[in-house]
Amino acid sequence: MMTKDYSMTELWIDSDGGIVSGNAVFDPWQLTWEESRSHEHRGLRTINARDALRHLHETAPMRRLPVGVIGPREATPGQCAIAGKLGRELANLGLTLLCGGKSGVMEAICRGHAEAGGLPIGLLPDEDWRAANDYVAIPIATGIGNARNAIIARACFALIAVGGGYGTLSEIAFGLHYGRLVLTLDAAPEVEGAIRCTDIDDALDRLAARVFNRDTVEMPPA
Amino acid sequence: MMTKDYSMTELWIDSDGGIVSGNAVFDPWQLTWEESRSHEHRGLRTINARDALRHLHETAPMRRLPVGVIGPREATPGQCAIAGKLGRELANLGLTLLCGGKSGVMEAICRGHAEAGGLPIGLLPDEDWRAANDYVAIPIATGIGNARNAIIARACFALIAVGGGYGTLSEIAFGLHYGRLVLTLDAAPEVEGAIRCTDIDDALDRLAARVFNRDTVEMPPA
Amino acid sequence: MMTKDYSMTELWIDSDGGIVSGNAVFDPWQLTWEESRSHEHRGLRTINARDALRHLHETAPMRRLPVGVIGPREATPGQCAIAGKLGRELANLGLTLLCGGKSGVMEAICRGHAEAGGLPIGLLPDEDWRAANDYVAIPIATGIGNARNAIIARACFALIAVGGGYGTLSEIAFGLHYGRLVLTLDAAPEVEGAIRCTDIDDALDRLAARVFNRDTVEMPPA
Amino acid sequence: MMTKDYSMTELWIDSDGGIVSGNAVFDPWQLTWEESRSHEHRGLRTINARDALRHLHETAPMRRLPVGVIGPREATPGQCAIAGKLGRELANLGLTLLCGGKSGVMEAICRGHAEAGGLPIGLLPDEDWRAANDYVAIPIATGIGNARNAIIARACFALIAVGGGYGTLSEIAFGLHYGRLVLTLDAAPEVEGAIRCTDIDDALDRLAARVFNRDTVEMPPA
Repeated sequence: MMTKDYSMTELWIDSDGGIVSGNAVFDPWQLTWEESRSHEHRGLRTINARDALRHLHETAPMRRLPVGVIGPREATPGQCAIAGKLGRELANLGLTLLCGGKSGVMEAICRGHAEAGGLPIGLLPDEDWRAANDYVAIPIATGIGNARNAIIARACFALIAVGGGYGTLSEIAFGLHYGRLVLTLDAAPEVEGAIRCTDIDDALDRLAARVFNRDTVEMPPA
Repeated sequence: MMTKDYSMTELWIDSDGGIVSGNAVFDPWQLTWEESRSHEHRGLRTINARDALRHLHETAPMRRLPVGVIGPREATPGQCAIAGKLGRELANLGLTLLCGGKSGVMEAICRGHAEAGGLPIGLLPDEDWRAANDYVAIPIATGIGNARNAIIARACFALIAVGGGYGTLSEIAFGLHYGRLVLTLDAAPEVEGAIRCTDIDDALDRLAARVFNRDTVEMPPA
Repeated sequence: MMTKDYSMTELWIDSDGGIVSGNAVFDPWQLTWEESRSHEHRGLRTINARDALRHLHETAPMRRLPVGVIGPREATPGQCAIAGKLGRELANLGLTLLCGGKSGVMEAICRGHAEAGGLPIGLLPDEDWRAANDYVAIPIATGIGNARNAIIARACFALIAVGGGYGTLSEIAFGLHYGRLVLTLDAAPEVEGAIRCTDIDDALDRLAARVFNRDTVEMPPA
Repeated sequence: MMTKDYSMTELWIDSDGGIVSGNAVFDPWQLTWEESRSHEHRGLRTINARDALRHLHETAPMRRLPVGVIGPREATPGQCAIAGKLGRELANLGLTLLCGGKSGVMEAICRGHAEAGGLPIGLLPDEDWRAANDYVAIPIATGIGNARNAIIARACFALIAVGGGYGTLSEIAFGLHYGRLVLTLDAAPEVEGAIRCTDIDDALDRLAARVFNRDTVEMPPA
C-alpha cells in the first residue's frame, strides 16, 4: 500500500493570504471550508498543510481547538526528548496543547511547548491546581480523577501518544471511539485504528492535514 | 506454565457455615479475611470458591460489590448467548451486575441476570433512564456520556468483556489501570494484563476466587 | 392557597390488582400510564398513592428508579433520626434508595433503609468502595469526587434533603435544573422550587404521587 | 460593619518590579508569597491589587489560573451588558476566563473578553466543540453534560455570577463547597457565603485581592 505524502496535501494560498482548495476557502475560526465567493483567486501558489497552519496562526484569528498529547507519568529519557521536541513544534505551528498536566511525558510536552511560547493546558485529575507540573500555563483542576481522560479524548481533534500504559490506552480507546485522529510515537500501545508515525515530522504532517480535513483523501494508485 | 485450578482454591466451610482459610474467617460484609477468634473450627470440609460464594449469599448479609460486564451495543448472536448465560450464572452466585444499560451485550446480560432473579444495574450515559434496555432493574442515568465508562471500571471489583470495540477497550484499560480483575470472553480486545478465559466456567471460577482474594496465590510447581 | 391532599390522589385498584386512573392502567415497569384495553375495570376501589406503590412493589415487577436522599456528613441527632425513619419508610414502600454513601445523614438513611430490608446504594465520591458507610449494601465507587452530586440529581426521580450545606445545595440546584421533584425536611437550604414538607408523611405522600405522575394535578377551588 | 477598601490592599512595588508585602515577594508563577531574600527593597511605592495584577501580567510569566464567570443561557440585556464589560476588564487585568461556553451571559462574557484581547475558554457540556458560542477561543468539549459545572467551580480560584438560575446555583454551591471566592452581580441567586458586589469595580477589586491572598485580611477599626 502506498503511503500518503501529507506534506503534499493540495492546498493553495492566494494573494490575500487565504488558504484555498478547489473552489473553497478555509475559515480558520469555524475550521471549515466555505464555498468561495470570488470567481477566481489570484496569485495562487501551493503550500503544504504545516505552512498553511503556521500562516493562518500568524495572520488570522484562529480557533484554538486543542491537540492532546498523552503518555505515562513515568517516562523514559527518550520519550521525554520526543515529547519536548513535539511540544515545541506544536507551539511553532500555533497549535494549542491540552494534556493531563502531570509528570513524565506530560511534563516534557508542557516544557517544550512553553519554551516555544505556547500556553500548555493541564486538565488535572486533582482537586488542587498545585498538583500540576511546573510548565502548565493554564491549570484546570477537575477533581474527577482519571475520568478526566474521557474529557481529554473528547475535547481534542487529535491525540498523540508518546509511549504509555493503561491510562494512555484508555485515552486512545476513547479517542478512536469518538472518531479522533490518534497518532502514536515510541512504544505507545498498539491499537487498530491508531496510526503509528515514523517520526515527529510525520505526526505533524498528519495533524496539519487533519486541521484542513485533508488527511482522509484517497491517494491515487502509483 | 501451569494453569491454576481455581475450582480447587483452598477454602473450607466449618459447621457454623463460616468460610475459613488457614486461621482466618471470611467477613462477607467487609469482604476481608479476619483472624479467627476461635482456636479451632469444627467439622471443616473443603468447598470451592463458587460454592462458598453461593453459600454466603444465601446465609449471610453480603456486601453487593458489583461485577461489571462490558461489551458492544451491536453484538453477534454468539456474544448475546454467552452474555445471557453469564448473566444467569452471576445471579445464581448472588453477584450484583453493573453494566452500561444499553443494547447488545448489555441487554443480553441484563436479560439473563433478571431471568435468574438478579437486579441488573444500568449505569447509563444518557440523561433519561428511559434510554435503558428493557431488562435493567435499577437504572442510573448519569448524563455524563461515555465518561461513565470510567466509573464502571472504578466501581466494579472485576470486569468481564464479552467481545467489544473501542468503548469496551476504554473500560478494560481503566479496569487494568485501577488494578481490577479483567476477564475476556469471545472476541474481546486483547490487552496485556486481561485474562482470556476458556469459557464461562473459567470466568466464574476466577471471579469467585477474586472475591476471596485467592486468585493471586502462587501455584506450587508440579 | 389551598394545600393539596396527596393522600387523596384519585387512584383506583381493580379486582386484578391493577392500578387504574380514568381509563388508563399504570405500568409499573415502564412507569407510565397505558390506555386500558379493557372496556371496564371491575371491582374498583379507591387507593391512596402510597398503598398503591406498596401494592405494586409486592405484586408486580416494578422498575427500581431510585429516590435520592441528600444531606450533610455532619448531621444533628435530629436529622439522623429523621433520616433513619425516612429510610425505613422508603424501604416499606419498596422504593430504591440512592445516596452519597458517606457519613451523617447518608449513614442514617442507609441504616434505616437496610434495617427495613432495603438495599441502599451509595454513589461514592471515592476511588475505593471501603469509604462507604457501614450500611451501604451496593457501593458504587465513582472516583469522580463531588461531581458525583450531579449524577445523583440526574439519576433520581426525586430528591429529599434532610438538612444540608453547600454540597446538598448543589444537588438541590441540579435536581431543580433537571426537573426533579425536590423535597426538603429539617433545616435544608431554602431554594425556590423545592418543596418544604411538613413531616415525613407529607414527603412520602408527595413521592408516591410523583411515581404515578399525580402530584401536579390542579386542585379544584374550594 | 466596616466595608473593606480592597483598592487599598497593602501591596508595594519595588524598583525591580517585584510585588512586595511585609518581608515577602509575590511569585506570579506559583501564586504564593515567598520570604524575600533581599534585606531591603528599594524604591518601594504602594500599588493597589488591580494595578499589581496588571503589572505582573505585563512583565512576568504568570500562571493563568482561571476565573469563572457563570450565568444563564437566557440573559437580560442588562446582564449581557454587565458580562461584556466584565469580560473586557478581566482581559485588561490579564486574567484567564473559564466559562460554560454557551449562550446568554456566557456568550456576552466571551465576547467582551475576546474583544479586549483575551482567550476565553469554554468548558462545554456538549460532545462537539461546534456547540460553543462564537467568541470562545479555546473550546473544551467535555461531553459530560451539566456535570461540567462541578469542574468549573473546582478549576477556578473565583467565580462571578451575573444573574442565574438553577445551573448557576449549582456552580455557586460547588464554589462555596470548595472554598472558592464567589461573587455575585445583578440578580444572581442569594446564597450565604457568596458576596454581593456593588458593581463591576467592586468585583474586580475583590478578585485582585484574592489573587494576592489579601482579601481576608482584617481591617483595623477606624
